[in-house]
Amino acid sequence: MTEDALVAQIRERLRGVDAARLSVGIGDDAAVWQPKANNRSVITTDAMVEGVHFRRDAMPPEAIGHRVLAANLSDIAAMGARPVLATIALGFPPETDTDWLLRCYDGVAALAARAHCTIAGGDLTRAPAILFSVTVIGEVRASNVTLRSGARPGDVVALTGPLGASRAGLLLALDRPDLAFDPAFAPLLAAYRTPEPRLREGRWLGASRHVHAMIDTSDGLSTDLGRLCAASGTGAEVDAIPVHAVARALAERTGDDPERWALDGGEDFELLAAIDRHAFGHLANRFHAHTGRTLLRVGRITGGAEVRFADGIAIAPSGWDHLR
Amino acid sequence: MTEDALVAQIRERLRGVDAARLSVGIGDDAAVWQPKANNRSVITTDAMVEGVHFRRDAMPPEAIGHRVLAANLSDIAAMGARPVLATIALGFPPETDTDWLLRCYDGVAALAARAHCTIAGGDLTRAPAILFSVTVIGEVRASNVTLRSGARPGDVVALTGPLGASRAGLLLALDRPDLAFDPAFAPLLAAYRTPEPRLREGRWLGASRHVHAMIDTSDGLSTDLGRLCAASGTGAEVDAIPVHAVARALAERTGDDPERWALDGGEDFELLAAIDRHAFGHLANRFHAHTGRTLLRVGRITGGAEVRFADGIAIAPSGWDHLR
Repeated sequence: MTEDALVAQIRERLRGVDAARLSVGIGDDAAVWQPKANNRSVITTDAMVEGVHFRRDAMPPEAIGHRVLAANLSDIAAMGARPVLATIALGFPPETDTDWLLRCYDGVAALAARAHCTIAGGDLTRAPAILFSVTVIGEVRASNVTLRSGARPGDVVALTGPLGASRAGLLLALDRPDLAFDPAFAPLLAAYRTPEPRLREGRWLGASRHVHAMIDTSDGLSTDLGRLCAASGTGAEVDAIPVHAVARALAERTGDDPERWALDGGEDFELLAAIDRHAFGHLANRFHAHTGRTLLRVGRITGGAEVRFADGIAIAPSGWDHLR
Repeated sequence: MTEDALVAQIRERLRGVDAARLSVGIGDDAAVWQPKANNRSVITTDAMVEGVHFRRDAMPPEAIGHRVLAANLSDIAAMGARPVLATIALGFPPETDTDWLLRCYDGVAALAARAHCTIAGGDLTRAPAILFSVTVIGEVRASNVTLRSGARPGDVVALTGPLGASRAGLLLALDRPDLAFDPAFAPLLAAYRTPEPRLREGRWLGASRHVHAMIDTSDGLSTDLGRLCAASGTGAEVDAIPVHAVARALAERTGDDPERWALDGGEDFELLAAIDRHAFGHLANRFHAHTGRTLLRVGRITGGAEVRFADGIAIAPSGWDHLR
């Protein structure tokens, strides 16, 4: 298959995705897109490499496509923005099955359609392993941009959902085929394969002036809370680690520590926010009414520089480091 | 070195690049950028993989960084746009020399500064080979957007410069160390290592209503003219292949066919435009006065569907196909 033929097939796969505001899409030298006046655009990029981020035997191709887009959308959510358009660079070895690749794009297209994110272009290249590099642009009202750096001592640290499910799903997919087909654990496999970026939640939180800082937990609570604190010039005290109930149940079966999964596992894509402590109760109620989800209290921002547990033990950033 | 430490060093390398319109840059979940009202934004992405697009022994790291950004900027130029910001995803094996990688970013930064393109963020990941995936966003007045698809029968097909120098430089760098240090051939090595995207030329041409279609020649004249014609529903007749004079001199020494380099070599990043035939002479004069460069006549757009030489011989797209 030639490059142009594969571009044409990929374009076909992505046809369903909303493109009303795109005046030129896949196939020209670049996409053309009409930004709205008075808004901010945000841009993020994230790559996934076979053997590093995924194994072909551990998840279906649709899930691989889903995850690389989801990782980027989660960054957009963490800014309080909504996604607008994306580009996808794909690299793959000569012997790769084209149908398998196109199924990856099916996973991209399904999530992109739900997120109203237009796939505006891309690049194809030979590579020694399969790799996807995605860039997403989002938009957000200037006053709603929510950075990592705004946390203030006294703020409540809260999560949009419990952690550890993705890490538990990874264990099932790679090491425990005996448990992977137990329907009780199906939510863990789903959390690992098709994690849902918290787009609605991020936009809602970003729109509140009581949310001072926000980051996604793609690299694990220990690393990402550390990053939020470092950017804000604060410390934090953690008194509760919200662990996904099904992950906890699996950990009981396997003898693992589910708190470690939550702290260091990463790829849960829940949002971690620093919220004005006086507003937290009311805001959490309204958040629940709007999204159907519960804001989970993790701890509080402190004036120090350390991130630690209530008993004083330091929390080292031991989540995912792409260079380790 | 940890990921965060490497991000900090890369950020330092890219500090010189103009960021006046960027309200949040490298280090948060995404960049925040203020687009201008009433303008179009364009976006393009291009990846370069070690062993596929470059070899570490064939060019200095600064040139590798230059080239991956240049390839994207060339796409922006081909739309008639000016670059605004870029993201860079980098993948590399564990044993890679960090200083070598940072020198790649020096090459990125130097070109980005000249092009006034802000490096707004990126991603780092392990990978089985060194790979860069760059996305660039550009802006252009809506009326100046110039696509591949606007060529009309009778239009003059013209190039912003001669072709084949990059391909000739590749030969020098890989296969002819005996000639690579001959100063007479230095322009070829420069064309291969640090090709200059035709940004000023692209904006100027895009602003003219007489320029009906434009594409860059990154994959070779035979492929890219074929793409322009396919998008426009036209054919073309080629009566002159503008070959770089120094490439021609090298070909005489090596016994190669310089016309084939120009047709199929690619990576010259000259722009190929279809221009109203009545306006061509006057436009070429003004182009020369404005840019100091000469618009080189290649042939004309025809009503047929074939791209061929004046003697009727078909020109098959035999330039760079990333899947071949």
